[in-house]
Amino acid sequence: MNHTVGRADGLAQTLALRIDQRLLLPGARLPSVREAARLHGLSPSTVVAAYDRLQAQGLVEARAQRGFFVRETRPAGNTPARSAARATAAAGPAPFDSLTLIRSLLRSEQQDSPAHGTLPLSWLDATPLRQALRAVLAPGQDALLLRYADPAGDPELRAVLAARLAEIGVHANADQLLTTVGATQALDLIAHSLAQPGDAVLVDEPGWPIEYARLTQAGLRLLPVARGPQGPDLAHMAQLIQQHRPRLYVTVSVLHNPTGHCLNLAQAHEVVRLCESGDTLIVEDDTYAAFAPAHSPRLAALDGLRRTLYVSGFAKILGAGLRVGYVAGAPALIARLTERKLVHELCSSAVLERALAHLLTRGGLRKQAERLQVRLQAARNRCARLAEQHGFEFAAPPQGLFGWLNTGVDSEQLAQALHPSGWASAPERLFSPSRRSGPHLRVNFASAQDARYWQALAKARDALR
Amino acid sequence: MNHTVGRADGLAQTLALRIDQRLLLPGARLPSVREAARLHGLSPSTVVAAYDRLQAQGLVEARAQRGFFVRETRPAGNTPARSAARATAAAGPAPFDSLTLIRSLLRSEQQDSPAHGTLPLSWLDATPLRQALRAVLAPGQDALLLRYADPAGDPELRAVLAARLAEIGVHANADQLLTTVGATQALDLIAHSLAQPGDAVLVDEPGWPIEYARLTQAGLRLLPVARGPQGPDLAHMAQLIQQHRPRLYVTVSVLHNPTGHCLNLAQAHEVVRLCESGDTLIVEDDTYAAFAPAHSPRLAALDGLRRTLYVSGFAKILGAGLRVGYVAGAPALIARLTERKLVHELCSSAVLERALAHLLTRGGLRKQAERLQVRLQAARNRCARLAEQHGFEFAAPPQGLFGWLNTGVDSEQLAQALHPSGWASAPERLFSPSRRSGPHLRVNFASAQDARYWQALAKARDALR
Repeated sequence: MNHTVGRADGLAQTLALRIDQRLLLPGARLPSVREAARLHGLSPSTVVAAYDRLQAQGLVEARAQRGFFVRETRPAGNTPARSAARATAAAGPAPFDSLTLIRSLLRSEQQDSPAHGTLPLSWLDATPLRQALRAVLAPGQDALLLRYADPAGDPELRAVLAARLAEIGVHANADQLLTTVGATQALDLIAHSLAQPGDAVLVDEPGWPIEYARLTQAGLRLLPVARGPQGPDLAHMAQLIQQHRPRLYVTVSVLHNPTGHCLNLAQAHEVVRLCESGDTLIVEDDTYAAFAPAHSPRLAALDGLRRTLYVSGFAKILGAGLRVGYVAGAPALIARLTERKLVHELCSSAVLERALAHLLTRGGLRKQAERLQVRLQAARNRCARLAEQHGFEFAAPPQGLFGWLNTGVDSEQLAQALHPSGWASAPERLFSPSRRSGPHLRVNFASAQDARYWQALAKARDALR
Repeated sequence: MNHTVGRADGLAQTLALRIDQRLLLPGARLPSVREAARLHGLSPSTVVAAYDRLQAQGLVEARAQRGFFVRETRPAGNTPARSAARATAAAGPAPFDSLTLIRSLLRSEQQDSPAHGTLPLSWLDATPLRQALRAVLAPGQDALLLRYADPAGDPELRAVLAARLAEIGVHANADQLLTTVGATQALDLIAHSLAQPGDAVLVDEPGWPIEYARLTQAGLRLLPVARGPQGPDLAHMAQLIQQHRPRLYVTVSVLHNPTGHCLNLAQAHEVVRLCESGDTLIVEDDTYAAFAPAHSPRLAALDGLRRTLYVSGFAKILGAGLRVGYVAGAPALIARLTERKLVHELCSSAVLERALAHLLTRGGLRKQAERLQVRLQAARNRCARLAEQHGFEFAAPPQGLFGWLNTGVDSEQLAQALHPSGWASAPERLFSPSRRSGPHLRVNFASAQDARYWQALAKARDALR
């Protein structure tokens, strides 16, 4: 082996390891040949040889005029990455983690898959948002663009939100509301300001994995409460509250992600009562508010916003690009969240917030919601038929945006088997804090209208039986 | 005392305490009379009596058709709030803290004061931003509004930023760039992802108090390095690095806030060398990039973005309402920051980011910067004359947006004395991690053009001598 070959191998191995350790993420561009040569003190031809090697191993791909990029999936071959992946596979879990899946789901070309959490692009209408933004860009509103906004959020938007909340029985003054960068930031501020590292937190299982990641990053201990088609396991919740005195209970009360379950009034009452008994704050994530069945009870309404923080946003109904969410709660809690937002971000964009206020005031949301509800009902009916035709069943009668599909086989293996045919999946394991697999897939009703999806799913299931 | 009077007094005292503890912030609206009656189980007439009492004490004000609001300033009178303020004053520090000041500076009516950190509204022109936003709101770009954005930020903006950075000698691929909600969020992600609680962090003293608050909230230990008109105390920095092995050095290298100092090439070189020796990451906050003297050396350029994270934004030059900043650094570090942004916020607004890309591509920033630089030069000249006329001097020759004015007296007392005449001040103590007072005030050249400000300042100083 001559020096060049040895050095090229060395660089290729280093980069393969970095790809495996996710220091270079899928889609990342490798440094240009010239740059890499400079960085590593190698000749350009050595770098070219190393990159060719990585390409042959299937770890990177060349794109014309653009350079080399880390590939999404890892092929067979005895590379360090491959051996590491094998070691992981031997230990049980599959070679992707929830953040990887979520990262891939955020790539816009994937945002219409049955695995995804939002409505397909073709269902949404950007016109109301665009008109609202154009309206607030009129001259005379320059301060919205030129000034720092109120850290608590645009006062006009907060007033409009307060009026909307009253319609679902949640009574908040404007000083009980804080706007955020999507509902996500609200949940993040809560995890970091209203709990201390080491505190216990109740979460629903299954549940939204980004929320688990966030709570874990904040140093909190997850206490999962099983949530099935009949609702949360309240007896277990009572026991956990008594034993651990959790600081928070983070839950999606209405159209729970992924099961679609809505708390009934008796369950909601019991949840509030239990949380009162343990002095546990309730974080009610109402992300799917726009699709909620009429008269769904909200914990925040029952509780009068005393110990409940109500979080919501508009990504599911108006489009995910707006990035305006909010949280309502007791004034003292909202003041703490506002302080943290100020330190972390100073303020959010008043232009986007004022545009949302404009849209809400003019009834733009209501019209959009009515139209989408009708279409979603038809999509749910079609999914129910397709599921039945192919021998699948939903864990509960379809409502909202997602169904929790019982596939009868290990859904993790099913997801892996389905992947090569181009269908992304959201298997049960993704929604488990303990990364436990099971038979369920979360299916987006709106994006699962193609009969070929169900055929591919049935075929993959039959091969696994 | 009858029952109603007693209860009204009780409610008034409760609310006064909440106002004093800043659980009810200035500008907050009190619950409506009906709502408060319901909340506290009192009759509406009792609530009215309590509110009248608070108004008589000057703690709240009535606004026609809108209700009662917490007032900005606290008047004399033997209320609980007043006694608490007195107790605090007796203990030493003044009755405002840095977050309170910053909160008040974010109120838009105060954003033109000599204490403020941005250009006056009248200097800025919203037209380029407005046009850019309108351009990206054209039909056909709906995905910007309707889809989650790439968590790393809009790819077009990252490409434009990479090209701009090359002009100051900082070479970053698009995968070495992450967009954020203002430069503030970039600094926040760094503090939380690239250091562990308990780690030591070097900071400039004086420096930006929100940064101190952020680092402290992240559990980091501040190691202040004195930064005078001649630059940072490099000998002390060397010692601190050797003793404490700090994880980060957070600094404004060019047009340091508040002193206006710019590192020269020799200092920049030495800073990079010292940080290398201690394996300390450098966080270079280039918030004032738009006003930088030509050829100001950047640490990121010297270091080749190996251990330096370069943070900047556009709030100072395009207006503070945009909320788009960014960070450039080594790919592995940027990947970690991106992961954290994803967990905390999912993604930021592609509409705002694409509009900024549009504006930058069309040279909108350059034109705005040239116009403002000329105007700012004139403002600095006028401030220098006014300062001299009133017997003040700047610690260093004026450059950039701020002057560090030596008042010859305790600037904290001066700020308190000046407050009643309506001029907000940013005294030295605000910029000290140990809350130490001193003779300096930070003066915004653009907002200190009114001769009456200098007269009031001189009068207050003379009274303190």
